[in-house]
Amino acid sequence: MQNNRVLCVISGGLDSTVLAYKLEREFALDFVSFDYGQRHGQRELWYAGLTAERMGVTHDIVKIPDLGAFLPSALTDQEVSVPHGHYASEQMRSTVVPNRNAIMLSIAAAIAAGREIPLVSFAAHSGDHYIYPDCRPEFVDRFNRMLLSALEGSVAVIAPFLNQSKTDIVVEGAILSVPFASTWSCYEGGEYHCGKCGTCYERREAFQQAGVEDPTIYEE
Amino acid sequence: MQNNRVLCVISGGLDSTVLAYKLEREFALDFVSFDYGQRHGQRELWYAGLTAERMGVTHDIVKIPDLGAFLPSALTDQEVSVPHGHYASEQMRSTVVPNRNAIMLSIAAAIAAGREIPLVSFAAHSGDHYIYPDCRPEFVDRFNRMLLSALEGSVAVIAPFLNQSKTDIVVEGAILSVPFASTWSCYEGGEYHCGKCGTCYERREAFQQAGVEDPTIYEE
Repeated sequence: MQNNRVLCVISGGLDSTVLAYKLEREFALDFVSFDYGQRHGQRELWYAGLTAERMGVTHDIVKIPDLGAFLPSALTDQEVSVPHGHYASEQMRSTVVPNRNAIMLSIAAAIAAGREIPLVSFAAHSGDHYIYPDCRPEFVDRFNRMLLSALEGSVAVIAPFLNQSKTDIVVEGAILSVPFASTWSCYEGGEYHCGKCGTCYERREAFQQAGVEDPTIYEE
Repeated sequence: MQNNRVLCVISGGLDSTVLAYKLEREFALDFVSFDYGQRHGQRELWYAGLTAERMGVTHDIVKIPDLGAFLPSALTDQEVSVPHGHYASEQMRSTVVPNRNAIMLSIAAAIAAGREIPLVSFAAHSGDHYIYPDCRPEFVDRFNRMLLSALEGSVAVIAPFLNQSKTDIVVEGAILSVPFASTWSCYEGGEYHCGKCGTCYERREAFQQAGVEDPTIYEE
């Protein structure tokens, strides 16, 4: 085991990018991303690749091309429109991809085990708890217990932002000089951030509350 | 929720095929198989498809084409040879695909949640416990606890053969008139079962101990 290594699950979004910059100060990193047919995938993954390139980090993309077709979610189904409005509202439930974190973390843990990397990181934060059950502390605890059985203690998941808000993450990113403009949040996956979907709302609000200048170009 | 439905994780092997015949008596079934670059995958999956066709069951194959390349195992790496000999021996550890069941069951649970199917079955049995940590009762318990958090109780995993031996499974299969010749075990994935790898040993021994005629053609 190489105790100074972490395999980062990185989407190309703000949270996982700031987390990579935070972990880079203490650990050697590998990146893994997932292409499961998400509508904003090409934008996200391009930015994840950009961050990998800047950091000089190995970056693998695991493709599960059929997964989107099997799962009903506004994030993967082109016929369901992405709801607009604030994250913490019932209509945003249509953006839940069921069991997404269990799937991504199980695959990441397998890759980490193969490379003898003891830690897998992901960037769930407190703002995700309301809608996404697989971003809650209870899920992370139970996932780690499951992993203790499945991999006999060789790999554990860490989620350093689990009890922090997105505003806290923006503050931390500003201190770490993260190039925020090189991260992608919008679920629509257009040329610019739409400014109307839940994750655009959340992104904008976090910069405002953090008192950090928001370099994002929003269509609206 | 449709309480009479089960999504069966089926490989095309003896255990999962007998389990499908057992569950068919009580439940309406869907099948899901995984193509993760396993060396014997094409044989296995062909037989899984044959069983689906005979039973008139929907059968989806989830492809994770890169997974094999990321994972070190004799089952996915063409440059590592499949060890010969009995299952319960140290050298068979090279056939462990790390975290395989967590990956397959996480994806199956997501698909089940999307279809409102409350149960996912898999065919781990007591003979798998020694080498494969993710076939042990503790793993199944902890996986279900994790799933309770991730999917809020909508899907659970069942493993009806968890405390039975492969010999018990052959006995049950004989009672259910399972066409054993239409199942595939061998890790080599040649034209016939090799008769020398761990799973061929185990298959042969189970028929002998069960006192059931073995219709398998072995090369040796």
